Amino acid sequence: MSKDTSAEDPWHSGGKLHPVLGTRDPQLADAQRVWGEDFEPVDLSELEGADPHLEDVGEQMRRLRDALTGIADSGADLAEAAELLRRAADIVEPQSPDQATRLASQWRKGGPGARRTNPVGGTENVIAPPLRAFGHPDGSVSARITLGLPYQGPPGCVHGGMSALMLDHLFGFANHWVGLRGMTAHYEIDYRKPTPLLEPLDMKAWVESHEGRKIWVRATIESGGELRVEARALFISANVPLPGRDATAPGEER
Amino acid sequence: MSKDTSAEDPWHSGGKLHPVLGTRDPQLADAQRVWGEDFEPVDLSELEGADPHLEDVGEQMRRLRDALTGIADSGADLAEAAELLRRAADIVEPQSPDQATRLASQWRKGGPGARRTNPVGGTENVIAPPLRAFGHPDGSVSARITLGLPYQGPPGCVHGGMSALMLDHLFGFANHWVGLRGMTAHYEIDYRKPTPLLEPLDMKAWVESHEGRKIWVRATIESGGELRVEARALFISANVPLPGRDATAPGEER
Repeated sequence: MSKDTSAEDPWHSGGKLHPVLGTRDPQLADAQRVWGEDFEPVDLSELEGADPHLEDVGEQMRRLRDALTGIADSGADLAEAAELLRRAADIVEPQSPDQATRLASQWRKGGPGARRTNPVGGTENVIAPPLRAFGHPDGSVSARITLGLPYQGPPGCVHGGMSALMLDHLFGFANHWVGLRGMTAHYEIDYRKPTPLLEPLDMKAWVESHEGRKIWVRATIESGGELRVEARALFISANVPLPGRDATAPGEER
Repeated sequence: MSKDTSAEDPWHSGGKLHPVLGTRDPQLADAQRVWGEDFEPVDLSELEGADPHLEDVGEQMRRLRDALTGIADSGADLAEAAELLRRAADIVEPQSPDQATRLASQWRKGGPGARRTNPVGGTENVIAPPLRAFGHPDGSVSARITLGLPYQGPPGCVHGGMSALMLDHLFGFANHWVGLRGMTAHYEIDYRKPTPLLEPLDMKAWVESHEGRKIWVRATIESGGELRVEARALFISANVPLPGRDATAPGEER
């Protein structure tokens, strides 16, 4: 899967995109034909939550997020809701360790990591839609999602920076799916058409090539059968220090 | 402020960055010297909320977001909090018009717009940190923020896509501050060093040049006096249809 990229400009915007198969049913044998016999896909399935109440809290926070955004001028009476939320926060805050402690807890050996609290895919983070990715036999990953008012930029459209956030996240999965890890070094995005809110978005990402520590990835967002966003990035395999530990982790944990 | 950019590559990564003054105290007279006598800055100050209970709800949602992220494995008992949140959601949901209605309400003539519900700067959206931007006499805008666990990508670091989201948002303010409006067409980001969580981040954005409908912008993120992220983008003045109306709005409303 390596190739010599030194003689070409991988970011030439007129370049033809790598073809991506549309299947949603990954087969390990197919992937091994494409990526080699030692290919072992990373599990992209949902991690099981440790605490059913935390699952429940996540679900209720998303209900509130979605119902509250844009509720101004509707005449809704929010006095009682504000009081209930204050009581909930008063219960949670004293039980929550400080942020440095929670960070270290996430990254301790055998710890939960940050995938369940990730701002794109984490069901324990109210920021996350959450986006769920699927791996495919050709080495690509995909996600389908419909975004509502909390993700608005231009009128009726997904915030361009939110598209950038979701695709950067999907790049991470594309790396994992073919057994690579890295951090974003250079990232380019072309916004071809506005990306609509309240309509299904189809996202795909795939590793185009890799060489040494460099990994080149591509991604697209389509909606209504039309290309909305194209993205390319260079990832570099790199270690960052693990909070609360002396050791380092290989690249980005999603 | 226009210049001929056709003979150069505005994205050459070795290019010198436009100098940005560090002042945080914008003076209209200074801006008019830089941008011309007809320069009228757009108000970047916080919009006043219509409903104090909605303000309160936003504050409590952020407290919960910040205390809940990474709380797994802490032994916290979340049963009662989950029940309070369910009751709050049960109160809010039936009062909240459907999303299409809320969208149209935001964009009706003289309506509230989406700035208070924006996913980066909106105090009525739990996704937003929220980021607050300041305009400066040299035409640049800046923001300072410290991000916690909800914004994590690599261990202990801000998610690279979150940096992309915040800078794209700041580009919008940089356009507004000098009287321009547009939508992101092409966006490039160089990640120079990891961007830390729990440390103050200094962001700056400015319009480098504009010509016809094209607007070139640049932005940086620094932390601890070191450059972390550099970004460049091409914005295009464009109209998008206003939800619920026949008319169109000029570009992006933040």
